[in-house]
Amino acid sequence: MEQRVIDTLREVFELNGFIGIETRAIEQGSSLLKKGETSKEIYLLSRLQEVGHESDTPVEQRLGLHFDLTVPLSRYVVEHSGQLPFPFKRWQIQKVWRGERPQEGRFREFVQADIDVVGEGTLPEHYEVELPLVMVGALERLREFGLPKATVHANNRKLSEGFYRGLGLTDIEGVLREIDKLDKIGADEVASLLVSECGATPDQAKACLELAQITASDGAALIDRFDGLCEIHHIDMDGGDYAMAKEGLDTLTMIVDEAARIRPGSVIADLKIARGLDYYTGSVYETFLDGADSLGSICSGGRYDNLATQGSRKYPGVGLSIGLSRLVSYMLHSAGATASRISPACVLVAVWNEENRADSNEVARLLRARGIAADVAPTAAKLGKQIKYADKLGIPYVWFPNEDPADDGPDQVKNIVSGEQTDADARSWEPDTVYAQQTVKTNA
Amino acid sequence: MEQRVIDTLREVFELNGFIGIETRAIEQGSSLLKKGETSKEIYLLSRLQEVGHESDTPVEQRLGLHFDLTVPLSRYVVEHSGQLPFPFKRWQIQKVWRGERPQEGRFREFVQADIDVVGEGTLPEHYEVELPLVMVGALERLREFGLPKATVHANNRKLSEGFYRGLGLTDIEGVLREIDKLDKIGADEVASLLVSECGATPDQAKACLELAQITASDGAALIDRFDGLCEIHHIDMDGGDYAMAKEGLDTLTMIVDEAARIRPGSVIADLKIARGLDYYTGSVYETFLDGADSLGSICSGGRYDNLATQGSRKYPGVGLSIGLSRLVSYMLHSAGATASRISPACVLVAVWNEENRADSNEVARLLRARGIAADVAPTAAKLGKQIKYADKLGIPYVWFPNEDPADDGPDQVKNIVSGEQTDADARSWEPDTVYAQQTVKTNA
Repeated sequence: MEQRVIDTLREVFELNGFIGIETRAIEQGSSLLKKGETSKEIYLLSRLQEVGHESDTPVEQRLGLHFDLTVPLSRYVVEHSGQLPFPFKRWQIQKVWRGERPQEGRFREFVQADIDVVGEGTLPEHYEVELPLVMVGALERLREFGLPKATVHANNRKLSEGFYRGLGLTDIEGVLREIDKLDKIGADEVASLLVSECGATPDQAKACLELAQITASDGAALIDRFDGLCEIHHIDMDGGDYAMAKEGLDTLTMIVDEAARIRPGSVIADLKIARGLDYYTGSVYETFLDGADSLGSICSGGRYDNLATQGSRKYPGVGLSIGLSRLVSYMLHSAGATASRISPACVLVAVWNEENRADSNEVARLLRARGIAADVAPTAAKLGKQIKYADKLGIPYVWFPNEDPADDGPDQVKNIVSGEQTDADARSWEPDTVYAQQTVKTNA
Repeated sequence: MEQRVIDTLREVFELNGFIGIETRAIEQGSSLLKKGETSKEIYLLSRLQEVGHESDTPVEQRLGLHFDLTVPLSRYVVEHSGQLPFPFKRWQIQKVWRGERPQEGRFREFVQADIDVVGEGTLPEHYEVELPLVMVGALERLREFGLPKATVHANNRKLSEGFYRGLGLTDIEGVLREIDKLDKIGADEVASLLVSECGATPDQAKACLELAQITASDGAALIDRFDGLCEIHHIDMDGGDYAMAKEGLDTLTMIVDEAARIRPGSVIADLKIARGLDYYTGSVYETFLDGADSLGSICSGGRYDNLATQGSRKYPGVGLSIGLSRLVSYMLHSAGATASRISPACVLVAVWNEENRADSNEVARLLRARGIAADVAPTAAKLGKQIKYADKLGIPYVWFPNEDPADDGPDQVKNIVSGEQTDADARSWEPDTVYAQQTVKTNA
């Protein structure tokens, strides 16, 4: 199931010209801790031979497991900048790890599927609408597995920051962090935190929450609502703060209008999206599934202008990441998708007795040569037991080689789901399409 | 490149009815250390928050990264024994990790590709020839990437042990460990080690080396040579030691004869194969490539009867493992294989000016809808620069949308390798087969 989802995403990413890369799971501590990520649950490594002396080495010089695919990408881009074609579009699907408190005896290991485009020095704005649309296209393809419709909710950090500053607030990171909690703790709680933690007056807190309530599916409506709110709160529309907000507003307007033209209903502006602790500098995205509010965002990202730097040279990027393990788990448990059957084999070839195993092997060889996955019964047990083995593996067909070598009559094949049994020749027989589709390309 | 190799192996494994599983990379220390593997370079984990207190937890209760895929399989089988169909045939392709001394500042992270079949209580012997043959078939498929012919060299632990005991030796593990060094340090050195480390007389050491020199491609020759050596060294052919050796000899005879019948030249008996430190109890395999002696074995394994146990219940298995990263590296550097081109895209659609980007996007959309991977130029730079970008990415075609919207003339497409430029319609144009083959399914 997860494998089929990965194959589908990979196909969409490559159709769109993204280059697949894989980075090592182990990075230097200095690289993992670079962006102030000390709050992350990072796993550090030590060799069995080092037990008792782990702490002799400073954390920055130790090794650790990557906790996302964006930090490794920024390391990779700087390391290979001489060879890479910029803008560099890459897809990457890998496991990442985050620790949990040891008393829970648990750890978190999950697969993320990322696309990013990274420029050298500059990066055109059109990627800020193209990348979310590639993800929407990919998620659309997953609807065949029962996934509901996905909608990207976009915002822009500059828009929020300009507005907050226009109100007279200065702890921008603090405000973003609290706004990020809206879905979890509700507006009243966020309002008191804005006052107690970020130095906001009750009126400023109210204005922040009003901003967070704005949504729009076209640019004109977005501008209307945002400018209206600025007027209500007396934000100087000739001042530098509004100018900053306007920069973000223009980008967001472009995004929703372009998206509406290309794929209506796929991207909306939603000014509560904050992505609290991350390294984003402009556009930010979260993605929600119809009827799956409790799942939260399944695909998030944004534009980051300062993550990768090399001396004075910057590598601005924009990217989105699907939390694949969580998504697949949702698809299996809630979205009506079912796991593939256990065995990839389409046919189990029966064995009459061990002396004739070679005949059964030959049938399997002929089927495989034509792309039909086949297994051979493990022992020459009673036929009922062999059929039960096929059933337990979810193999739909059992093949009976012609029992009497003296008689050159045909083999037979039984569909153990329908019970139908027919003559068959391993050189030409084809399974019903509905079963054939599940073979080989299907992963258990 | 590695991705294409993985896809090929997966296809062969599934055609043969192996079930794909993935196990977590992180295992309990107790599970990793179970089989006396303290000599392995295991990586242990600690949370960033635990720095300074790592050693408060006993190693068995800590977490670590798996160093192979066989130990995790044995844990998995025991944990899921109630649900698994036995014999359980599984393939698994994953990264594994082994530490190196920190002063080298290095670590080893590589991909292994394993197939195993695990029985419940018993496991029929025919799998001991079938699994190496599946691997030979898989390696055969890799010859299209430039891999030389592979030959499996098989031996049997019981044969070796019976012979050594028949000679009067008792430190069987010691002898196997020294014999395992033959290719590295040569016969003279091994002979002195057998005397100094394993308590062998010079005559016993000589007999061990003579056994290690026996190879055979058919069962009759094998029996002839083995029995001849037993006679020379006065091993009692009615005694228990010979009976033990005979058990291994019978299995090995079956393997080479069956393999010769099904795929001549694929498997030979080679009595120097020892697999020194591992958990094998019967058949052992190593695989060598023609003309690549220095590479050593690229696919090894064997039968293990005691690795997975649950109370008194045993889960005997047989399996082989390809060291995939090493193999791919060899294919790229020595076997004449070349890495895929950088971008998976087949076409780069040019952009005349930013106002017409939507037209270029629409061409790309039409091509992708027909399975042709396409990228769009990042900026409306001068045409020469756009063509250079395609060239750097290894994209063979550049598409020119009809420049003048007033004129409904056709688009054009240029093959930047041949220089040929023709009229084209994104709804029907097809790339030359040779390029089309590289799209989408090809990974960078």
